[in-house]
Amino acid sequence: MTTERLEHRACFGGWQDVYRHRSEVLGCDMSVGVYYPPQAADGPCPVLYWLSGLTCSEQNFITKAGAQRYAAQHGIILVAPDTSPRGADVADAQRYDLGQGAGFYLDATQPPWAAHYRMHEYIAQELPAWVEADPAASDVRAIAGHSMGGHGALVLALRNPGRYRSVSAFAPIVAPSQVPWGEQAFAAYLGEDRAAWRRWDACALIADARERLPLLVDQGEADEFLATQLRPELLRAACAAAGHPLTLHLRPGYDHSYYFIASFIGEHLAWHAAALRGG
Amino acid sequence: MTTERLEHRACFGGWQDVYRHRSEVLGCDMSVGVYYPPQAADGPCPVLYWLSGLTCSEQNFITKAGAQRYAAQHGIILVAPDTSPRGADVADAQRYDLGQGAGFYLDATQPPWAAHYRMHEYIAQELPAWVEADPAASDVRAIAGHSMGGHGALVLALRNPGRYRSVSAFAPIVAPSQVPWGEQAFAAYLGEDRAAWRRWDACALIADARERLPLLVDQGEADEFLATQLRPELLRAACAAAGHPLTLHLRPGYDHSYYFIASFIGEHLAWHAAALRGG
Repeated sequence: MTTERLEHRACFGGWQDVYRHRSEVLGCDMSVGVYYPPQAADGPCPVLYWLSGLTCSEQNFITKAGAQRYAAQHGIILVAPDTSPRGADVADAQRYDLGQGAGFYLDATQPPWAAHYRMHEYIAQELPAWVEADPAASDVRAIAGHSMGGHGALVLALRNPGRYRSVSAFAPIVAPSQVPWGEQAFAAYLGEDRAAWRRWDACALIADARERLPLLVDQGEADEFLATQLRPELLRAACAAAGHPLTLHLRPGYDHSYYFIASFIGEHLAWHAAALRGG
Repeated sequence: MTTERLEHRACFGGWQDVYRHRSEVLGCDMSVGVYYPPQAADGPCPVLYWLSGLTCSEQNFITKAGAQRYAAQHGIILVAPDTSPRGADVADAQRYDLGQGAGFYLDATQPPWAAHYRMHEYIAQELPAWVEADPAASDVRAIAGHSMGGHGALVLALRNPGRYRSVSAFAPIVAPSQVPWGEQAFAAYLGEDRAAWRRWDACALIADARERLPLLVDQGEADEFLATQLRPELLRAACAAAGHPLTLHLRPGYDHSYYFIASFIGEHLAWHAAALRGG
């Protein structure tokens, strides 16, 4: 795979890099932020994959979340990819919640999306293979994300048992089949047959899960998308019905922004660090 | 003064707000970020004024520096104003280092700049009067900044003895009279007579200072502007010649970006907190 390093900046004793690499799965170049903590100079470190939300690129998390401080403390590599395939030959839509910047971390089956929109395969297979080709990165993995990326993190973990040691999410879309963001994206990417949607819906997957990987979720109670798009009560009910372990923090006053993520990313990194050290 | 609250977001147990208020000094509306730590709910907190660099607005520091975490820990209000007057009737230039976004924290004397470009008076007088009208804010003040804003912080502290308990800077322009950024800006704002420049040049002011407020400066050794625009050796020499206390940290590998600021803003907040608690 062809790789170009676009940014290389000292940060909390380590390095915040940005790379562009060729994705064969997506059929385009992809930008990825990678934070190497100081410990990565001495041997392989575990890797947390961060999936960002609608409209984001690889830049949002690395510039706004303040996660590098905690990654440096715990010795965790942070990998933050772009949120969809990109490019002039990649299908797009005239809206913020479909097409480029809105890949929804699934493998599309419908035209014109199926040609490039295979973010699940990219995140689960191709991206870690690229990351782990660097001896600084181990194959011990965690996954987390925000909003659309929280949906992605939950679905990636639930569909790939054994692949991640831990999973967490901020303000995730927990039941895309039941909310407007998910319904319009799934109809476009997967078609109108809702039976095909269940494989990409965290609440549906929890009902069928064999591995019971504990979920950590933070949700702001002043989030402008809480009642219409996020609906954490559906996740709570699905976990209760299936006996799936869930730690759900409802945070009074917090909204959907990176100020919310920054405020609690330290707790999430500590949770992942404990899981990544174990086993 | 007319004030409008543009943003209000929970952050580390406090509130990251953005306001637009009318500045009579500048003759325009100004945007200002204000972080209220949780302690501000219980009584007046000291205030750190942060001055940003070229091209910045009030957004850069509040979204990228990660300072709120430390402000919440120490109980410090953070005030981050825009970097110049703004608006269709405010003079501007077709370059990033003069005009809007490049006020250089001085009071201009030359046309067309003198009408609006009075950032020194705004930061020293009008902004704190506006901030301190809120009972959550005390009149115990510190000042800090980055690059052009590091120049601003040093000059504000040196020109206004007794007004700030502490001052610090990241990658400041320490001798604007001797470097290209400063020379072009001072020639435009202050005119060609270099005698008038001394009052806005930190290294020149240190020679004449009566108050010997200790300076804390962090400078990345991989900063792309180090040799041409920043030249910390001139600050070291000026302080040594005058007997002015200086703590200068040269940080190997760090560049001019907010990744550098984020990495050491915690140390600066701790320095200011110690000074703001004392006296």
